[in-house]
Amino acid sequence: MLNKIKSVMIANRGEISLRIIRACQELGVKSVAIYSEADKDTLPVKLADSAVCIGPAPAQASYQNQEAIISAALAFGVDAIHPGYGFLSEKADFAKKCEDNGIIFIGPSADIISKMGDKIEARKIADSASVPTIPGSDGAVTEFKKALEIAESIGFPLLIKASAGGGGRGMRVVESRDTLEQDLNEIMSEAEVAFGDSSVYIEKYLTDIRHIEVQLLADGDSCIHLGERDCTAQRRNQKLVEEAPSPALSTSQRNDLCQSAVRLAKKVKYKSAGTVEYVYDNIDKQFYFIEMNTRVQVEHPVSEMITGIDIIKEQIKIADNQVLNIKQEDIVLSGHAIECRLNAEDPENGFSPCPGTISYYRPPGGFGIRMDSHLESGYTIPPYYDSMIGKLICWGADRNEAIIRMTRALSEMKVEGVKTTAKFHSKLINSEQFKSGNFNTVFVASLLEKQH
Amino acid sequence: MLNKIKSVMIANRGEISLRIIRACQELGVKSVAIYSEADKDTLPVKLADSAVCIGPAPAQASYQNQEAIISAALAFGVDAIHPGYGFLSEKADFAKKCEDNGIIFIGPSADIISKMGDKIEARKIADSASVPTIPGSDGAVTEFKKALEIAESIGFPLLIKASAGGGGRGMRVVESRDTLEQDLNEIMSEAEVAFGDSSVYIEKYLTDIRHIEVQLLADGDSCIHLGERDCTAQRRNQKLVEEAPSPALSTSQRNDLCQSAVRLAKKVKYKSAGTVEYVYDNIDKQFYFIEMNTRVQVEHPVSEMITGIDIIKEQIKIADNQVLNIKQEDIVLSGHAIECRLNAEDPENGFSPCPGTISYYRPPGGFGIRMDSHLESGYTIPPYYDSMIGKLICWGADRNEAIIRMTRALSEMKVEGVKTTAKFHSKLINSEQFKSGNFNTVFVASLLEKQH
Repeated sequence: MLNKIKSVMIANRGEISLRIIRACQELGVKSVAIYSEADKDTLPVKLADSAVCIGPAPAQASYQNQEAIISAALAFGVDAIHPGYGFLSEKADFAKKCEDNGIIFIGPSADIISKMGDKIEARKIADSASVPTIPGSDGAVTEFKKALEIAESIGFPLLIKASAGGGGRGMRVVESRDTLEQDLNEIMSEAEVAFGDSSVYIEKYLTDIRHIEVQLLADGDSCIHLGERDCTAQRRNQKLVEEAPSPALSTSQRNDLCQSAVRLAKKVKYKSAGTVEYVYDNIDKQFYFIEMNTRVQVEHPVSEMITGIDIIKEQIKIADNQVLNIKQEDIVLSGHAIECRLNAEDPENGFSPCPGTISYYRPPGGFGIRMDSHLESGYTIPPYYDSMIGKLICWGADRNEAIIRMTRALSEMKVEGVKTTAKFHSKLINSEQFKSGNFNTVFVASLLEKQH
Repeated sequence: MLNKIKSVMIANRGEISLRIIRACQELGVKSVAIYSEADKDTLPVKLADSAVCIGPAPAQASYQNQEAIISAALAFGVDAIHPGYGFLSEKADFAKKCEDNGIIFIGPSADIISKMGDKIEARKIADSASVPTIPGSDGAVTEFKKALEIAESIGFPLLIKASAGGGGRGMRVVESRDTLEQDLNEIMSEAEVAFGDSSVYIEKYLTDIRHIEVQLLADGDSCIHLGERDCTAQRRNQKLVEEAPSPALSTSQRNDLCQSAVRLAKKVKYKSAGTVEYVYDNIDKQFYFIEMNTRVQVEHPVSEMITGIDIIKEQIKIADNQVLNIKQEDIVLSGHAIECRLNAEDPENGFSPCPGTISYYRPPGGFGIRMDSHLESGYTIPPYYDSMIGKLICWGADRNEAIIRMTRALSEMKVEGVKTTAKFHSKLINSEQFKSGNFNTVFVASLLEKQH
């Protein structure tokens, strides 16, 4: 079935490792799982054709240890490495190391990863592809006069971000012209101290937004989209529930959004699965590019369930240099899918992680249910990694049926021995606001406040 | 969501009981499971809202004990009884008892069950609805002259069946005119002795056939079809693998077949889920009505997976007197689905049943996989009922992907402690003949012979 790729090393763990192993099996490709000492007895290790320990439990020493992984890949003589999500999946240097060692990195080239990973560069590419970006400064701002000029053109509130900041650090919201000068000076000084670079950029601050993203498949020449996913239900920037299609978009908005993502990918001759992320402003009903993720995403199954397309298999086939044999007009969005990211966390206690042993596990079942999880009865959740224990994805003929089915499945599922977010998810998706489809990225926070 | 039905007793066991409980939960209806003493600790009992023991292990004393079930239904005050398949599902007298006791029987009326259960009556209805039936005698034949006349019009080989026979008893294939008189006399004498009725009927004997059936939903007024299922892969008249769509039909044949089933159902103002079964002659490419099943079938999930319609939920809504709100033109057949009926049997030993305790059970998972099963680790398969341990249903974008996915899932599934037919199923679906789509009802027998 594949030409060059006869074996794949999966440089990841947990459910996504299992997901990729299954895709390899269906493609007739040998799979090699890697594992840390903490993950010795896990399902991916049992289900892969071979498995190799690449280091001690901390990710730095194993799943993020590029040298150890490349060495193991060379030792096993694998043709390709699939990085999954997280860990090394968006490390351009790792993709480069694979290339240098004659191993296919299942993802775009190091150059593209690097370009898209640079926010300023990515924004420039978006602009050049006529993909709307959040109104703001074109480049770095270093003085008040320029800041004021921008502020007057885009209006308040606005956001000042340290150029060298990231992940929420070095940001400030400015509510009005009155405090602009003082705020600017303060954040520039802070940035100078924190990052050794006082330059900032300024953009419109959107207060009522959704997070919507577009799934792409591209082979370097043609590019198709699999519709969008709505990931607005978040808690502290962590996605909790994702769904497709978005309840916020009209057909013509969906079309505009998806076409813009395709334009962006084509601009850089993108080649792999990828996702273009946007914020959607509930107030002015506009979408704005934020970034492109050059890897498979946690929530990819919702797109699979409404399109019938196996994204991981397609991604591997593209890495095998095959021409994408799905045409845009063949893609039909059918029904509605919702994913709940289930964590071993205690919602009653600030969502603190609850590692421990799962004494009994019974996945939910039935029509329209997919549980992507590496759990088994007796599995011990190690404290070293994120607390996700699985993704429950439910398909329904419409959004209402998907919500009902998810509720049923969440209550059917049995995970004994650790606390999980299952009941919290059930409350969330059955809240009036979620059911109405009309909510924004802070709605979960307000839902949690109401409970207290 | 429902008007009259607020609680349902499920008069069945195993996977179908679980299937119906799930549908009830999604409809917001209370479920009451029944169980025999042998099924006390099973998943349906655990997952239903309530459960009641209705007798000792043998089905006669429990799952077929109409009085015990009606008494329990009255004691619990349930609004409806769902009979599942097998057991009491096509017993007109049980449907009547439900009606007489003010309990909704989830299925058609006793009158329709009775009419469709009578083969001669059903054939008459089919004829009147212009549904093709196997060429043969219009009614009972009692003399050679008449038999010869029929034989000359339909040709040899032909089949003589005792009018009072059934289930394979009282049947004989006649190869040529030479033996017709002797064969006729012999089978009439045998029938007189066996059934006290010497009359027979005669029909064309088809030697190279497929089994194809059409899934219907009808509310007494309108009727829609969900396409066909192909159940040709059988062993001794037991279905092993079912799929949808049939690899044998062209689009126009599919349309003709499905329309004929709708005509039949409309003729009797059918009201419930139902299935019209046909043989399809590989030689002359014609289909012929054989019978209508007035219940849900084991293999209903393959239709669910290519249409997205939850057949059990629709069936319950129809029993609740709701108007069918799905239109024929809304039904899109998408992709391909295959079901393997997995049994605790030993294929190496004539498929003898292997009851026993399942020390470890892990269902397969991933995209496109549905495992409808009541198994759990530690579950003991009782020797009293059929040996089915679950149904593995796989969806693929096309038939090839569905076969590959099924193969992967069969190998991923783990059932320890008893022998199962999983590996046999894998061989079957990967045989050249199954993969070609070109086979008939005896192909499994010849596959098994080849192995010996």
